[in-house]
Amino acid sequence: MKISIGQIKIVVGQPQVNFEKIKSFVHNAKKQGSDLVIFPEMCVGGYFNGDRYLDHDYLSLLHSFNEKIKDLSVDIGIIWGNVFYEPLDGITKGRDGRPVRFNAAFFAYNKTFVNRTNNRYPGLYIKHLNPDYRMFDDSRYFLSGLEIMRANNELDSPFLHPFVFERNNMKHKISLEVCEDLWDDDYEFKVTKEIAKHHPDLIVNISSSPWTINKEKARERHLAQKSKIPTLYVNAVSMQDTGKNVFVFDGGSLLFNNHGEKVIECNDRFIEELLTVDLDKPQVVQHTYSRSKLLEAVMFAIKEFDRIMFKEKVKWIIGLSGGIDSSVNAALLTLSLGKDRVLAYNLPSRFNSSKTVTNAQNTANLLGITYGSFSIEKLINETKNLFNNELSEPVEENVHARLRGHVLSTLAQINGGVVCNNGNKVEVALGYCTLYGDTIGALSPLGDLTKMQINELALEINTLTGKEIIPSNLIAKIDNGIPVYDFAPSAELKNNQVDPMKWGYHDWLLTRIMTFPTRRLNSFIDEYMNGTLEDGVKVLLKYYGLEKKEAFFADLKWFISSFETGVFKRIQMPPIVTISRGSFGYDFRETQAKIEQYLNLK
Amino acid sequence: MKISIGQIKIVVGQPQVNFEKIKSFVHNAKKQGSDLVIFPEMCVGGYFNGDRYLDHDYLSLLHSFNEKIKDLSVDIGIIWGNVFYEPLDGITKGRDGRPVRFNAAFFAYNKTFVNRTNNRYPGLYIKHLNPDYRMFDDSRYFLSGLEIMRANNELDSPFLHPFVFERNNMKHKISLEVCEDLWDDDYEFKVTKEIAKHHPDLIVNISSSPWTINKEKARERHLAQKSKIPTLYVNAVSMQDTGKNVFVFDGGSLLFNNHGEKVIECNDRFIEELLTVDLDKPQVVQHTYSRSKLLEAVMFAIKEFDRIMFKEKVKWIIGLSGGIDSSVNAALLTLSLGKDRVLAYNLPSRFNSSKTVTNAQNTANLLGITYGSFSIEKLINETKNLFNNELSEPVEENVHARLRGHVLSTLAQINGGVVCNNGNKVEVALGYCTLYGDTIGALSPLGDLTKMQINELALEINTLTGKEIIPSNLIAKIDNGIPVYDFAPSAELKNNQVDPMKWGYHDWLLTRIMTFPTRRLNSFIDEYMNGTLEDGVKVLLKYYGLEKKEAFFADLKWFISSFETGVFKRIQMPPIVTISRGSFGYDFRETQAKIEQYLNLK
Repeated sequence: MKISIGQIKIVVGQPQVNFEKIKSFVHNAKKQGSDLVIFPEMCVGGYFNGDRYLDHDYLSLLHSFNEKIKDLSVDIGIIWGNVFYEPLDGITKGRDGRPVRFNAAFFAYNKTFVNRTNNRYPGLYIKHLNPDYRMFDDSRYFLSGLEIMRANNELDSPFLHPFVFERNNMKHKISLEVCEDLWDDDYEFKVTKEIAKHHPDLIVNISSSPWTINKEKARERHLAQKSKIPTLYVNAVSMQDTGKNVFVFDGGSLLFNNHGEKVIECNDRFIEELLTVDLDKPQVVQHTYSRSKLLEAVMFAIKEFDRIMFKEKVKWIIGLSGGIDSSVNAALLTLSLGKDRVLAYNLPSRFNSSKTVTNAQNTANLLGITYGSFSIEKLINETKNLFNNELSEPVEENVHARLRGHVLSTLAQINGGVVCNNGNKVEVALGYCTLYGDTIGALSPLGDLTKMQINELALEINTLTGKEIIPSNLIAKIDNGIPVYDFAPSAELKNNQVDPMKWGYHDWLLTRIMTFPTRRLNSFIDEYMNGTLEDGVKVLLKYYGLEKKEAFFADLKWFISSFETGVFKRIQMPPIVTISRGSFGYDFRETQAKIEQYLNLK
Repeated sequence: MKISIGQIKIVVGQPQVNFEKIKSFVHNAKKQGSDLVIFPEMCVGGYFNGDRYLDHDYLSLLHSFNEKIKDLSVDIGIIWGNVFYEPLDGITKGRDGRPVRFNAAFFAYNKTFVNRTNNRYPGLYIKHLNPDYRMFDDSRYFLSGLEIMRANNELDSPFLHPFVFERNNMKHKISLEVCEDLWDDDYEFKVTKEIAKHHPDLIVNISSSPWTINKEKARERHLAQKSKIPTLYVNAVSMQDTGKNVFVFDGGSLLFNNHGEKVIECNDRFIEELLTVDLDKPQVVQHTYSRSKLLEAVMFAIKEFDRIMFKEKVKWIIGLSGGIDSSVNAALLTLSLGKDRVLAYNLPSRFNSSKTVTNAQNTANLLGITYGSFSIEKLINETKNLFNNELSEPVEENVHARLRGHVLSTLAQINGGVVCNNGNKVEVALGYCTLYGDTIGALSPLGDLTKMQINELALEINTLTGKEIIPSNLIAKIDNGIPVYDFAPSAELKNNQVDPMKWGYHDWLLTRIMTFPTRRLNSFIDEYMNGTLEDGVKVLLKYYGLEKKEAFFADLKWFISSFETGVFKRIQMPPIVTISRGSFGYDFRETQAKIEQYLNLK
């Protein structure tokens, strides 16, 4: 059997656009002699639709495309993911009491829905495991196959029996899964194991799985460890948002054979692809992770966000201070969108060192982007005049930051553009930023990256371009695990200011508490007390003088208290390109109400 | 039997504070000779905890209070709501694969958990219906009683059998429910009906139910229509947030007898109360809705937000333009926090009419709050100078708004305060506002109120105070359903500017599409085409010249396109006091990806 993997690029909310793409992929798959072509989960309307999933008009529209795709299946089998928006087994209402909706997979051939061995639910599969953690809200919108099974008091899910795909006098038993069904480690119900009981020839998992760092490795581990049945994983390429978070989908569709070997592989570089293979002549392929995947992910996010969110080709305005974050952002924007789309402005006050100003100019020159400079001193003075020159240092720092925000916003509107936010995740976590100042922008490309990850990106950008786009004086040298700076990162809002973060250590601590929301602080404190923290962290603690308990706990208190207070700023920050398993926004859901007293802060 | 309703005020994340409150209420209930005292759902940690519900440390802390409350039950029964954080029936993991958590009710007496008629789960009830719509995320965090029942393949929920409360040689059969269990109309599983099968003497529903407009009426309707069993509803008083939304809980605890009559009633005015009654001597009480509940709700939100979010008594800085929104906000702040906490500033440019400036002064004088004025003209000129005086009108409008934001932010910091946001829901919906300008602030008291609701509040404020706090020239006269203004609302960002909203009609349209997310626009368009829209709307359409299809659809297109584009601004706006059944933020979950082509825009 020849199958085609339709690793298409999906646009949320544009079913007609996605349908045209599906149509052209089906056409090409047929030209390549395929028996079957497979598309990702929710390939008609995209996955992250928010509360539009409640809208009858939108759901009806999405549902109507199922017939249209079925009609494309002349002489070729098609598997695709979409909403199923009809009552099922007399179940008319979802758990919210509204008309029931399902996250479904469909299987059609010759304009007919393909039958199962058990003759139930022709052509239809309902996702069994609904993710309800992190940015996922599946149970908010969809009833799962598991819930249907239980509502019907069945002990065996009829959806897990294979479809029988008859083609050229051959019968292929194919079972479907949708996305999370593959990741059943943490669930009591094991979808793949249940499927295996019915001995399909092939399991097809269709996914729309947001990429996070190292996800491609986890994916392969999962597929390799799964049952002894060949499993095809078809993932989308996409940029989708939940308002506060911008997610990227990397593709990376794969076939694993019954020996747990990878035998087919689409690119996992965020590029759509139609890959046709003969299942009877597979070849074991080597693992080929792209090396600078983080760089690719952020660039793809910028490119697609720009393409989809704005009707016209807007300019991207960046405040280029000459520090590492804004330099990396300027490079990311330019590499993603081209030099004509980026305008960089240095907005110095008397506190800005000549070193950073020179850095900014050099970076802009090397990138070939427009560079301008506007002094904010007069606006500062006018603000002081308004208040009779009496501004304390903290007030003046924020005045500087806000006036920069004001000037950048004005430049954006003058140039028909939008502002790029330069915040990094550690700043965002600790609220080390000024609301309506450096927190502004249409998108935050670095808001989910620690300073250490930005350091890596800087090196990769210089390697990729073969130029010192990011001045080497900004890049920390990692010496025995410790980041050493030529001159330390600074907001340059007053004389001799240096960021209060303990780089490396706070990056690590933040990543730990965001990635493992179930074990937040006491387990960390216990490990510190017991001396069981990993060696790299111990080195950092020593470097920063936090071996002594008093200093350690004082720092931790400052960190947590800054973290908790910072929520009110995060609520008003721009959308963040999300690359971790714990990003601020809709991913890690925070309230402003503070909780302090439960810490074992001795 | 004498019972006490413990309608306590709950603070999120402060279990020790809440426990002390419970303790003192138990003490007083005993003094009043009560047999049983009842507290609301999640009365230990509060209801809206966001992803803190994943944190083992926090959950363990909350759970530990169950033993402490049990220990208070010497010579008095106690019913309370809290997290149950232990495996149950061998179920160790929640649907997210993390250690299982439950939203539970507990029943203890004489330091022992009270037994049920079926001898199962002593003292423990698990919420059966998990709300997963609007701002609710129960299934994200908790496994429901229904899910346990189904996982155990039971057809009858053991949790719905009554507890047997033995006291003074009397046996009282009492069944518990938690919040949503009462609102089972839309669910297939009917909790109250199932409970009734076991013939309890009393059903106790403990709730933490955010108030929305007219909720008190819906609540009474529900309780009156329920089974023939006396039902006691115990609700919290609280202000809780989900980051983007600030909710208020009004109390309003009630007892309905077996004839569907209200026989006991706590206040529903957001005030905590211990009410002790003898169940054997009930009195039918009259419905006594507080008349200006919306005003009370917003004031309570401001008061509690201020009390809980800030360690010190901050000043509230308000930009008092002399328009209706800022005037109402100034009054709300002053009535809630006292005149010493509010600083009002008028920040005129050359476009501000003497009428509005006079209005602002009068309002501030009548409220007795500090009033200042700072002209932003020089800052505007300095901004123009920076760009060689070349600013188009739209750019200059936003410059004005942003510089006001800048001046207010500076004033806030100088005075150790925070800025109050003045946006109304229609502006927020249509993006009729300037990011980092009039969108700033720590809290948006009016961001969920339409202009017409603000108009009502204005009248109520003047009635309440007996003064013309809100100048009558700002208040629309409602003439045959049409709002008529002396002078029309304006942002005053250029000469002769008038807001583009069709007040009354757009208020109504917005309320409709936000309150009914399942039937968004096509049903509305159909009603327009068929002439079946309600009369009040027809009157407004006629008044605004939208009877003709061309004008109607042109306006609708503008409305929807502004609504969809406005998302990017809403993402960055402050927390909104939520009073409707469809507030922007975490309640109505939006993505930035736009969907346009599904409308039947003829």
